[in-house]
Amino acid sequence: MDKFFDKFYYGGDYNPNQFPKEIWYEDMRLFKLAGVNIVTLPVFSWASLQPSENEYDFSWLDEIFDLVEQNGIDICLATSTAAQPAWMSKRYPEVCPVDENGVRVKHGWRVNFCPNSEVYRHFASKLAGKLAEHYKDRKSIKVWHIGNEYGPVCYCDTCAGKFREWLKKKYKTIENLNKAWNLQFWGHTVYDWDEVLPPSNIAGGKIVHQARALDYFRFMNDSVLECYLLEKEEIRKHTPNIPITTNLMGTYKPLDYFKWAKEMDIVSWDSYPRANDPMSNIAMRHDLMRGLKEGQSFMLMEQTPSQQNWQAYNSLKKPGIMRLWSYQAIAHGADTVMFFQMRRSHGGCEKFHGALIAHVGHENTRVFRECAELGAELPKLKEIIGSRVKAKAAILFDWENWHALELSSGPSKDLKYVPEINRYHSAFYNNNVTVDVINPSFDLSKYDVVVAPVLYMVREGVAENIKEYVKNGGTFITTFFSGIVDENDYVTMKGYPGELRDLLGIWAEEIDPLFPEDKNGIVMQENDLGLSGEYECKLICDIIHSEGAKVLGVYKDNFYMGMPCLTVNEYGKGKAYYVATAPSAEFMDAFIKGICQQKNILPKYTFDKGIEFTERENEHGKYLFVLNHNTCEASIDLADDKFVDLLTSKEYSGKATLPKYGVLVLKKIN
Amino acid sequence: MDKFFDKFYYGGDYNPNQFPKEIWYEDMRLFKLAGVNIVTLPVFSWASLQPSENEYDFSWLDEIFDLVEQNGIDICLATSTAAQPAWMSKRYPEVCPVDENGVRVKHGWRVNFCPNSEVYRHFASKLAGKLAEHYKDRKSIKVWHIGNEYGPVCYCDTCAGKFREWLKKKYKTIENLNKAWNLQFWGHTVYDWDEVLPPSNIAGGKIVHQARALDYFRFMNDSVLECYLLEKEEIRKHTPNIPITTNLMGTYKPLDYFKWAKEMDIVSWDSYPRANDPMSNIAMRHDLMRGLKEGQSFMLMEQTPSQQNWQAYNSLKKPGIMRLWSYQAIAHGADTVMFFQMRRSHGGCEKFHGALIAHVGHENTRVFRECAELGAELPKLKEIIGSRVKAKAAILFDWENWHALELSSGPSKDLKYVPEINRYHSAFYNNNVTVDVINPSFDLSKYDVVVAPVLYMVREGVAENIKEYVKNGGTFITTFFSGIVDENDYVTMKGYPGELRDLLGIWAEEIDPLFPEDKNGIVMQENDLGLSGEYECKLICDIIHSEGAKVLGVYKDNFYMGMPCLTVNEYGKGKAYYVATAPSAEFMDAFIKGICQQKNILPKYTFDKGIEFTERENEHGKYLFVLNHNTCEASIDLADDKFVDLLTSKEYSGKATLPKYGVLVLKKIN
Amino acid sequence: MDKFFDKFYYGGDYNPNQFPKEIWYEDMRLFKLAGVNIVTLPVFSWASLQPSENEYDFSWLDEIFDLVEQNGIDICLATSTAAQPAWMSKRYPEVCPVDENGVRVKHGWRVNFCPNSEVYRHFASKLAGKLAEHYKDRKSIKVWHIGNEYGPVCYCDTCAGKFREWLKKKYKTIENLNKAWNLQFWGHTVYDWDEVLPPSNIAGGKIVHQARALDYFRFMNDSVLECYLLEKEEIRKHTPNIPITTNLMGTYKPLDYFKWAKEMDIVSWDSYPRANDPMSNIAMRHDLMRGLKEGQSFMLMEQTPSQQNWQAYNSLKKPGIMRLWSYQAIAHGADTVMFFQMRRSHGGCEKFHGALIAHVGHENTRVFRECAELGAELPKLKEIIGSRVKAKAAILFDWENWHALELSSGPSKDLKYVPEINRYHSAFYNNNVTVDVINPSFDLSKYDVVVAPVLYMVREGVAENIKEYVKNGGTFITTFFSGIVDENDYVTMKGYPGELRDLLGIWAEEIDPLFPEDKNGIVMQENDLGLSGEYECKLICDIIHSEGAKVLGVYKDNFYMGMPCLTVNEYGKGKAYYVATAPSAEFMDAFIKGICQQKNILPKYTFDKGIEFTERENEHGKYLFVLNHNTCEASIDLADDKFVDLLTSKEYSGKATLPKYGVLVLKKIN
Repeated sequence: MDKFFDKFYYGGDYNPNQFPKEIWYEDMRLFKLAGVNIVTLPVFSWASLQPSENEYDFSWLDEIFDLVEQNGIDICLATSTAAQPAWMSKRYPEVCPVDENGVRVKHGWRVNFCPNSEVYRHFASKLAGKLAEHYKDRKSIKVWHIGNEYGPVCYCDTCAGKFREWLKKKYKTIENLNKAWNLQFWGHTVYDWDEVLPPSNIAGGKIVHQARALDYFRFMNDSVLECYLLEKEEIRKHTPNIPITTNLMGTYKPLDYFKWAKEMDIVSWDSYPRANDPMSNIAMRHDLMRGLKEGQSFMLMEQTPSQQNWQAYNSLKKPGIMRLWSYQAIAHGADTVMFFQMRRSHGGCEKFHGALIAHVGHENTRVFRECAELGAELPKLKEIIGSRVKAKAAILFDWENWHALELSSGPSKDLKYVPEINRYHSAFYNNNVTVDVINPSFDLSKYDVVVAPVLYMVREGVAENIKEYVKNGGTFITTFFSGIVDENDYVTMKGYPGELRDLLGIWAEEIDPLFPEDKNGIVMQENDLGLSGEYECKLICDIIHSEGAKVLGVYKDNFYMGMPCLTVNEYGKGKAYYVATAPSAEFMDAFIKGICQQKNILPKYTFDKGIEFTERENEHGKYLFVLNHNTCEASIDLADDKFVDLLTSKEYSGKATLPKYGVLVLKKIN
Repeated sequence: MDKFFDKFYYGGDYNPNQFPKEIWYEDMRLFKLAGVNIVTLPVFSWASLQPSENEYDFSWLDEIFDLVEQNGIDICLATSTAAQPAWMSKRYPEVCPVDENGVRVKHGWRVNFCPNSEVYRHFASKLAGKLAEHYKDRKSIKVWHIGNEYGPVCYCDTCAGKFREWLKKKYKTIENLNKAWNLQFWGHTVYDWDEVLPPSNIAGGKIVHQARALDYFRFMNDSVLECYLLEKEEIRKHTPNIPITTNLMGTYKPLDYFKWAKEMDIVSWDSYPRANDPMSNIAMRHDLMRGLKEGQSFMLMEQTPSQQNWQAYNSLKKPGIMRLWSYQAIAHGADTVMFFQMRRSHGGCEKFHGALIAHVGHENTRVFRECAELGAELPKLKEIIGSRVKAKAAILFDWENWHALELSSGPSKDLKYVPEINRYHSAFYNNNVTVDVINPSFDLSKYDVVVAPVLYMVREGVAENIKEYVKNGGTFITTFFSGIVDENDYVTMKGYPGELRDLLGIWAEEIDPLFPEDKNGIVMQENDLGLSGEYECKLICDIIHSEGAKVLGVYKDNFYMGMPCLTVNEYGKGKAYYVATAPSAEFMDAFIKGICQQKNILPKYTFDKGIEFTERENEHGKYLFVLNHNTCEASIDLADDKFVDLLTSKEYSGKATLPKYGVLVLKKIN
Repeated sequence: MDKFFDKFYYGGDYNPNQFPKEIWYEDMRLFKLAGVNIVTLPVFSWASLQPSENEYDFSWLDEIFDLVEQNGIDICLATSTAAQPAWMSKRYPEVCPVDENGVRVKHGWRVNFCPNSEVYRHFASKLAGKLAEHYKDRKSIKVWHIGNEYGPVCYCDTCAGKFREWLKKKYKTIENLNKAWNLQFWGHTVYDWDEVLPPSNIAGGKIVHQARALDYFRFMNDSVLECYLLEKEEIRKHTPNIPITTNLMGTYKPLDYFKWAKEMDIVSWDSYPRANDPMSNIAMRHDLMRGLKEGQSFMLMEQTPSQQNWQAYNSLKKPGIMRLWSYQAIAHGADTVMFFQMRRSHGGCEKFHGALIAHVGHENTRVFRECAELGAELPKLKEIIGSRVKAKAAILFDWENWHALELSSGPSKDLKYVPEINRYHSAFYNNNVTVDVINPSFDLSKYDVVVAPVLYMVREGVAENIKEYVKNGGTFITTFFSGIVDENDYVTMKGYPGELRDLLGIWAEEIDPLFPEDKNGIVMQENDLGLSGEYECKLICDIIHSEGAKVLGVYKDNFYMGMPCLTVNEYGKGKAYYVATAPSAEFMDAFIKGICQQKNILPKYTFDKGIEFTERENEHGKYLFVLNHNTCEASIDLADDKFVDLLTSKEYSGKATLPKYGVLVLKKIN
């Protein structure tokens, strides 16, 4: 099922229990003014729902439910389990986690529990069940929201014990473990499962045996996911037909969201870019969140109407930006636009986080006005709910690779995963070619171009998946420091890039990291991508030899001057490119343009710079999203195609001009 | 009583017990050469005064007393309780504090005790009492010096327990506490006092519920202050007429010195500017220390004769600087000039801290010579002892506001309290208008201009105090991010600036922090302050609406271009200015000049740039302090007034020229 | 005995137990191809050699011994005690150290034991003894390698107890201790040994009483050294004639290698320069390692054939660099060239550290080829084994001074010891004057010039040693902040530079540190060193007075403008220079050139810039090492001397030209 909602939902986190009741009524008035049709509640209220070990009190929530429903507003029901009550932490100190320095922390933060604590699990799933049972007949509940921004990591003895069980299941024998983790290195051979410790900072940390840290990451991910699943199970018993989600956080390293998405009916996420984030990076995170469930549309669960509070500099969103970025989310697959939060809290650390309703409490604010304008507009998008974003290109993203790469001791401390993903994503973005960001194990056959930046770890099945894809005509691009290790971070014995060596037709003999102040160059050779001359490159220079690949570019400097740094290999009906270094944005844009031109996947329209373009499609038609990120007018040429703008009902063809921060949602009509 | 001393005291910390006795006699000779007439002893000697739990030994100190007295030198008697003996820390480990990471530290530092430790309190007050009893008949004792640079913070279980008692007294019920701290936020509602924890880093830290951290700051301040009071009580029993002080540290954040000053007979403080501190910042700290007791003169208890040892770069004070800065202290209200320390220690971490007597041990050093010259000069200032600095302007300084502001999560990590105080103070300083730095609750009626930079927290009574002042004709200036919260850090529901909104005649709708590399501008509108054209501003831009205030300046850039950023509101007989952003020094100097001109409080004399000017006054006359901070000659024009320089007995009128680093102390004679 | 080996050994760390057996045979083939004639094993294999408390298993090592011996390769036998087995850490948690924050760490790192743990000492020495007994008849063993890169520091209660014993032995009475450490300072007088604590961060840290930290450094050094000695004793019982070493780490601060060298038959060390280290700094470390045993040649135990893995940027060594730097080591006294490691491990944190055999496993790599070429060349150097490097200049290096200087609170955080050593060493290096880096207590009579940069601490006997040397005609140079403290960090009462004051004929009155952005100048006065004009200086400016010394240079700026900053004093038959500030490289090169010219110790040959030159000598002849560090050709003029190049057998005289990275090893033949 792809279409969960029959309204375009607009609203967000609502915490009325922080306010006196008279405020609640004012909230309802303001919600209606703003077009709010859904609220998420009660996200952090466990202590109120369960005042003591044996006492549950939902009466106050009932009252809020009644009021919200009377006002025609639907509900995203949160299980409230992201912060256990203080009484629980006090009575059962083991509920609180042990941090990576080996210190048992105390009550005081949120997402501050040991995910393997039986006490936490018991009470959390029990609360979820009780909520489900109590509210199961409320028609207003449209979606369940379990926990909140999951993410605890713990190094306590309970976790250590469970980790050993997890390892026994995976490796069966201690010999297998010693081998998988290469524990002979530095003489860390273990003879008993009890000798295995979580990789806390006081037990050698994460980089002595990266394989240990990788397994701990997997184990922790599984442990936290189990917390979610236990709640989900309780909920399903009572409300089998209401979709269940939990709010994710984009490129959040501690959890492998591809594993989570399998257990979520619909993905939802919280988008909090830094004020100076490049637009393409925000787009990348939307594409990743959409990619988690292979293209299924998602919920924008949280964004701020105006400013954040926890950044270094919490700039205001300028007039028009909140609307523009909301449409960007939709353009990339969002079926809801929701905020944190409805009303600014007056005390506590998030009191300066933006909200629909400001501290002053009335509707006469810029932010409220902008929100209300958007609220009036969004119902016009009802028909696009559940439509799919069309992408002919994909970037492979792998949490395990992310961890492995950044655990590596060497070659360069500056080599980070997400910036390399963005390096490629932004090149597609700048060419207005839509990209899916997906897992390496997913079906690749629907793509014309697939890119795997720094595919350092090639897990079982991945090389086969990629080769099958290329054999059948696909174009594949990968980069330096790829094909190096298996899923235990064990380096290939086949010569880099290991499992990908025959596919790419090259051998990487050495890997040279550059100092930040150094650079090299790519000197283009004969090629059919339309590139010529020289481009700058930095960070890493793989020293490679062609074993059949055609050399498209060579190094300009250093002792490997003249050696290949850009190659392409014919493989089956397809092509496999190797980019041996980290090129400048100028190269990236031209290179990806050349590739897309060859595969004929450049958009048929032309755009001024700074215009973003995507397309969604469903049984009702094709929808073009045109977003002007410029601070001035800009245009798109729609050629002979004819469209109607869903927002204004105006018809468009040929050249269309958008004002600063303007948005068109064009439905094709010819 | 305002005048405590009948000599102008000159001397400082003296630690003869670090040296063999033959050195003591040499010290006496050198003290006399240098004009030293007071020494502070024995600051860190608890272990020598009390070698074990039941044994006290004052004999060695008696000997030093005798010698010092025989040489006509008076004594500032320290209670020596800033560092407990090692035997105490060993026998009673709970005397040592638990740090903010939850770790119980061990013996080894100074000011290294839990202020709520009954053991510490018992032994410290007992020692103070025994010293007082033993020395009560020594006429040489002119002032008591309790502890030293108080400041411990502790997070131990004893403190946690006392904190809960403190809270019970303040809030009465757990419901009141939940409300005051807004514990509904993130579901931290407590049902039992035992669930309340000190805000250590392992218990959520300080920013989740800022109200908790604020109360812990207040509680810790009270706890440490109680240590001081217990000693004071013991001392008073035996020497009811000797004034009691403890040495403060200027803008020292952990303690609320306004609360301390109430319990001190005379304020004393240790002035240790960084070598590159602006002169106005040093002046500000003197003004604050004077302001603690509403203008009463103070002791300069410590400064270095030459270099410090604990800065990153411990530059020498150049020839003349020590004298110049000593007179600066006097110009701002000091009635003593004292050093740390008399003789450089030869071992331990302060051995490279400057002293009257260098390691080489003789008087033939530049530093000694400069000290001796000053020592010969200071007796001429005897008549100014107890005189008052005249200030017609005041800056409001509030420790609680300081904490609250810097606990805030958002809007900008660069927003700090003391720099904003200095921004305004330096503008007065540059115009040679003397300022008192006082508490918002103090009587404001004697001032023509009162400034409250970033008065984020408006505590009970403060708005009323300010309004009363303006009503009666005062000029008030406040800035962006003021009037936001009450004393529990609870945001106003009245629209920013809350309690000050009607006074200022504006409403601040939004608060926009700027990235460090960004700026905006103030475009001056019609005004009677003499300002025109454009000025730069940075850091924060409040977006405000006039609700009656006159707009004097508007923003130059960003989406709020043209909106007000400088306003004035007529209120009663007075005026209230709002500066919505952080302007450049150029604006500040011109703006404050305009204000002072209007209020007719600019000095009647004219000065070259780099000359500092203040005035003290008592029943004997008016004393003008003229300090030349320039590295070249500079002048002041005294108009027709006639003066005699107390230092040289030379008469001055009209234009007077001072050499590099020169000083005049002019007594008015016409 | 000076000559330990009858081959020029080439090889390195070999860890076959990380690989399946079939690989071992391939290793032998590759070793022979590369000219490898020694391997170090089994460095980190304790867990394999002793699988449980009562079980030892050497069978797998026997097998490797057999194979290696069959292939004619010799063995450096490691005791494998640098990382205890996991079972030991689990069963005896006290084996693991307590870190400087007071936290008991767990198993997981290497060199991760408490050096005072009786359990560790028992098992480590037992293993060493068992290995020695088991392998005593293997003729292939040429040298013992105890532990690996020793260096643990521990703050546990066991260490605290042993520290007190150590102090009792040193100070006899508690009164002596109080005095030696100046514990009166801040009132830290102790009355019982139990009140003394190790200077961990939670017990006051290292700078309150620097004397305590210095003694703890000495105690820890002794404690770790005892671990080494216990193993050595066991080994000696069985193999009295095989030399024993442990691999040192150059300028490694925690251990006083001069004390270690006394207990080592031959020094060996691991050279891991950063990719951008100046060549002279690498040379300095070789000179220091050679100086440890007063000039005895040493083993280069480890270097990387290509890249490292634990630097921030692990650049490749460019073609020719590995060979060039290997010869540099030999030129400075190395009698072996050995690598870490023979084969890259495939898992664990060092898997990207360079090795002879790459992950790809074959010989067709640049790195292997370069290694094999060097392996083919080195046998030609057999005759130089045991020869001595000839140096007429020496730099004094003292670990205790290093610690004391950097524990100092003030005058400047930028004042560090090793950079000041390098400041002088590089000036000799640039003039191609070979330097020994030796201990201040060593015999100085063989040197013409001796330099002691920042000899802050002058320990007993040192001043006498230097004065004796100067009296007899030596030239001595020292700098600012010298002669300040004795070995307990107690400041001289004689006026700086204390014990050296009469030798230098100056008195340093004050010490002025400069801010990093500030500088001063040296204005040269009349002198016979050939210097004129002005030079830049920074960091520290001592303000000195001549007490007989001739003033060669004066300050250009600041209030001490015109005061001396470079002086020379005639003393006996010699001269003593004082450099009161930290001059520019330009000054340093000219100054040291002037000094060397005067002493007639400049080399008789002339060199292009970038050529490095040293000389070794033994009963067979004189060997000149000429190394071209330039990236282009460069020349040396050999005048009329005649030589044969040991590497090529080519004869040289007059001008000889070396290619980029070229090396000549010239034996004098006339």
